[in-house]
Order: sequence, then C-alpha cells, then structure tokens
Amino acid sequence: MTVADLGEHALLARILARLPRPSASVLVGPGDDAAVLAPGRNERLVVTTDAVVEGVHFTRAYSSPADVGHKALAVNLSDLAAMAATPRWALLSLVLPGSWLVADVEDLVDGLAALAGRHGVSVAGGNITRTDGPLVVDVTAGGEAGPRRWLTRGAARTGHEIWLSGTIGGAAAGLEMLTDPGSRIPDPGCAARHRRPEPRVRLGVAMGRARAAKAAMDLSDGLADALRQVAAASGVGVRIDGNVLPIDQCAREWWTNRGVDPVMAATRGGDDYELLFAVPPRSGGALRSVARHVSDPPLTKIGVFTKDPLELVIDRAGKQDALPEGFEHFAHR
Amino acid sequence: MTVADLGEHALLARILARLPRPSASVLVGPGDDAAVLAPGRNERLVVTTDAVVEGVHFTRAYSSPADVGHKALAVNLSDLAAMAATPRWALLSLVLPGSWLVADVEDLVDGLAALAGRHGVSVAGGNITRTDGPLVVDVTAGGEAGPRRWLTRGAARTGHEIWLSGTIGGAAAGLEMLTDPGSRIPDPGCAARHRRPEPRVRLGVAMGRARAAKAAMDLSDGLADALRQVAAASGVGVRIDGNVLPIDQCAREWWTNRGVDPVMAATRGGDDYELLFAVPPRSGGALRSVARHVSDPPLTKIGVFTKDPLELVIDRAGKQDALPEGFEHFAHR
Repeated sequence: MTVADLGEHALLARILARLPRPSASVLVGPGDDAAVLAPGRNERLVVTTDAVVEGVHFTRAYSSPADVGHKALAVNLSDLAAMAATPRWALLSLVLPGSWLVADVEDLVDGLAALAGRHGVSVAGGNITRTDGPLVVDVTAGGEAGPRRWLTRGAARTGHEIWLSGTIGGAAAGLEMLTDPGSRIPDPGCAARHRRPEPRVRLGVAMGRARAAKAAMDLSDGLADALRQVAAASGVGVRIDGNVLPIDQCAREWWTNRGVDPVMAATRGGDDYELLFAVPPRSGGALRSVARHVSDPPLTKIGVFTKDPLELVIDRAGKQDALPEGFEHFAHR
Repeated sequence: MTVADLGEHALLARILARLPRPSASVLVGPGDDAAVLAPGRNERLVVTTDAVVEGVHFTRAYSSPADVGHKALAVNLSDLAAMAATPRWALLSLVLPGSWLVADVEDLVDGLAALAGRHGVSVAGGNITRTDGPLVVDVTAGGEAGPRRWLTRGAARTGHEIWLSGTIGGAAAGLEMLTDPGSRIPDPGCAARHRRPEPRVRLGVAMGRARAAKAAMDLSDGLADALRQVAAASGVGVRIDGNVLPIDQCAREWWTNRGVDPVMAATRGGDDYELLFAVPPRSGGALRSVARHVSDPPLTKIGVFTKDPLELVIDRAGKQDALPEGFEHFAHR
C-alpha cells in the first residue's frame, strides 16, 4: 500500500504508534499544533515545524519568492499562536534547486525576515541543502508559554462555545481565482489571503494568558478539518450555525456567482490560518477583555461543542448539513 | 546568477546578511553547528536543523528506509554534540512522495526511533507533507548545555592542539564502493559508515562539561571543510600531520589499490560525523579525564592551530600539501 492509498491521517496514526513514549518533560507530544516541553520547572518551550513545498502549497506562477518566505514562517507562527505561545525564534531549512536565482532566494529570505521582525522572532539558524526536485522551505519555530497557559486541541467540553477569529474562505477562493483559466483579475484581498496569511499571534497569546479559552487550533486545513480534529481529540460533537459564519465578501461573491454554496465552500477551504477556540460559557468576561485588547481580528461565536461525538453538523435555520470532510493532502488527483 | 553558479558558502553569506540582528537571548546565531538560546537565566537551549534529500544525500539503491531515518536524526545529533549539548527532543518533518510504500515509511520511522531511544531523545512532534519530487527528511533537534559549557567554531586560538575523534574516510570510501559499477561486495564497515553514521554524543557533551576543549565542529562535510571553517571563524591557520591521521583501514586499502592518496581522499571526504576539537596545551589533564570516561571513539592529536590564517597545510615529514577545499554541495556536476 502506498502513502497516497492510505492517506495522511491514517499514516500519521501509524507513525505515532511506532514512536517510543516521550519522556516526562514532554507535556504535549505529537498530534497537536505544536509540542510543549518543560526544560525547567517554570519554563514551557513550545516548538513546531511545518514545510511549504513548490507545486503542493504554492506555485511560482501565483506566488512571489517573498510570498513563499512569508508563508513558510506564517504557518509556523500560526501553530504557536494556536498553542497560545509567544514566538521567540525560528530555524530556516531551505531545500533548494540549483537552478533558482540567487536574487529570488534573497527575496524569499526578505519575505520571511520581514514577518519575523514584526513579531520579534529571531532567525537563529538553519540549513541549506540542494535538491533535484521542487523547492521545500521547512521552518521550525519555538516560543514560550506560561505554565498551564498553553492550549491544546483536546480540552473542548460539551457546552463550550465555538469562537472563530477573523473571516474564512478568502484563501481558498483566492487560489481558485488565481488558477481559474477563465478568471480575469483576481480579487486582491482574496489573493492576498492565499499568498500572505497573517498568523494570529497576539490573539492566541492573549487568549491563553487570560484563560479565556480551554482549547484552540488553527485553520491551516480549513474550518471543517479543525472542528473535526478538536472534536475527535476532545471526545465531543460540533454544531455550528451556518448563517453566522464570517465569510470573506470576495469569497462569498466568487462562489455565489458560480452557483457554489459559500457556506460549504468556506467551511471546506483551507489556508485561512484563523484560530478556533473552545470557550466555556462562564468565561465571557475574560473573552470580552481579550477582545478589547486585541480588536483585530474580531471574534465570532459560530456554534457549540455538543455531547454526541458523532454529531458534526452545520445548521442553517433548522436545515442541517454534515460538516465536510477535512482536506486530504495525499488524495489521488 | 543561479544558486548553482554562486555556491553554498557564498549563498549562505548573502542570506545571513539579510537577516535582522537576533535578539540578545540568541547567544549563538546562524553560522555554527547549532544555535544557542537563553530562554531563562540558567538554561541554554541548543537547536539545530538538517535535512537528508533523496538523490543528494542518499539513494534508495544503497540505503534502506531505516538507514535514512537513522541518518536524518544522526546528522542532527552530531551537530548538537559539536556544541557539547545533551540532546533532548526532535521534530520530524517528512516531505513524502505519494508513491512511497507505507511499510517503507514505517521502517524509516523505526530507524529514527531506534537511534532516538538510544540517546534518550523524545520525538516530540513533526509534520507530514506531500511532494511531487524526491523524499526529504528534515529533522530539528533540541538539547541543553550548561551556561558557558557549549562549544562554537570560533574559539580556536594559536597553539591550540587539534584533536579528532574516531577514524575518517570510511563513509566516503563506502559510498564509492556502493556506487562503483566495477566494485564487487562493498566492505561492510565502510558501507555502514555511509549508511549509519554514529553521532559522537557522549564525547561532545563530556568535552564541554570538562572544559577540555575551547572550540568544536563536526565533520559532516569532511575534515578539510571542518578545519577551514574553524580556522576562518577563529582567525587562525591550520597545520595537520598527514602521517598520524586515523584513516579507516577499509578506506586506506580501497584508495591505495586505486592509486589514490588515502590522506588527501580521507581529508576531503565527507559524511564521517566525527568531532574536531581545539584543545589548549594546558588542558591535557581535562582531556585525559574525558578520554578515560569516553574511551570509544578514541581521540587522536592530528595537528595544531597556527598564527597565520592563510596557512592551511597537511605536513608529511616535511612535504607539505594545501588542505583540500571543502565539499561544494551546489557544484555543477
């Protein structure tokens, strides 16, 4: 059986089953947005790694080298934000085709360095290696969280409210606009959400510090995937209100004009890098306090975690749809 | 100008020039075997990342999936050892072709996990992504060192003795044996040094703890490359004794039978993952104490760091050769 036959989630499960049990200083091991380690009694080191691959996560026709550098770091800062960790450092591993122009490599580094600078992240090291295949930019990011302030995927409980940052759908619609041969000028807002996702660093950290949320995850593979993963890790169900979903206006118009249901498309689409939180009803005060300090992006209550782990539904005024399946990276195309 | 035209070292210099200055908590930034960070007053976090790429660092004809998993972690543990850091955790980033067999991925993970287990390293997380190109296994490893116990490349001084762990040449000769169409059965010892390098973890940590060495580097790209890098970073020259170099017997025979000078070939060849140390003459007691506690691999004194940064020589009873150039990964083939 090949990797493509088995699929990413099942492959991950097989790999995890083969790893030795981590030591006691690993507080959160494989399977969450990032790992949490306890090198000392009061420090929590949060580390994550994520790669962007040419031809899979981007193509050079639609993204500049600076976009690629930005995105490679952004997806990692998003993972740290989803753990409520403050990012501190990053390592840049470049797997480079010899045919790349040096000027393009420099632009890529500039795109990454600019985002690093905005978040006070030190590029502490890295590696360059040659490949005969496509470009791979693999970034590892490290950060800090206070003891018991980090947020996992597995702590959502029945009755917790589901809160979502910002808007969704723009990145998926933007990629469709860029790659659709019949499309004229892509909407710049939607295209930018595909090319330059903004990691929600301040929001994630504030939610952890204020103890407003119990669980969190980022939307790298879409809202439906994130909801399914949090529900599975927490042993709960999900009911969201399709009529209140904050969908990017450019995406809503794009899909509506093509006869596609914007709610289902935005729920399925990936690459938004917004954050999803499980918030106990009694934490409303803490949540409002966070929203006052971090007003951008806004937070929207989109539903509730429910008791039945088999319930994964989008409700629109009584009409119910099943939550779409998550995006499958290894699916046969 | 392309990356292949410019070459790895010059490309690295251009990239480093574009990165913002790291924060004060980055004690050692880009350019050494690993980065050293100070998250708290008494902790030193040492992190490194290194990738192995199919078709560049290994081919499936000569390495099993378990060999590849072993090597991907080994090269990172070697970087930590060269900083005198105790390895604690690793992140595994797999960039996988969909056509790989799941059983092969499992073997790869087993190879990595076995080495991790031997060194008490927790695989704390990672990432899987798809590629249309060759397999890339990118590992990030993290460890700890006591304050002021870590070893960089830049602290060698005139008069410091050059000490080398173990033996060299075996990995390069082993790769030649495996890929030479005229070669019969490759020597298993030399082949194993290419396939399964052994990171010198205990030795590196002991040298840092005992303060026996002032500088260290691992031999990922060969002895000549390591000597040149330590000399350049420290502003000193190098004089080694070609007659005392500890060359693997299988490599010496292989090259001698082909009319190749084993000293020059072993000095140039990469992938040995032994450690090089700069040891002040007055540290002989500390060095002997380390050698008593870590008898395997043995240490050999191979030369001395000299005053003139332009002096980079191999001396054999008065006959002098220039130290070979380091291996250039992006060289046109």
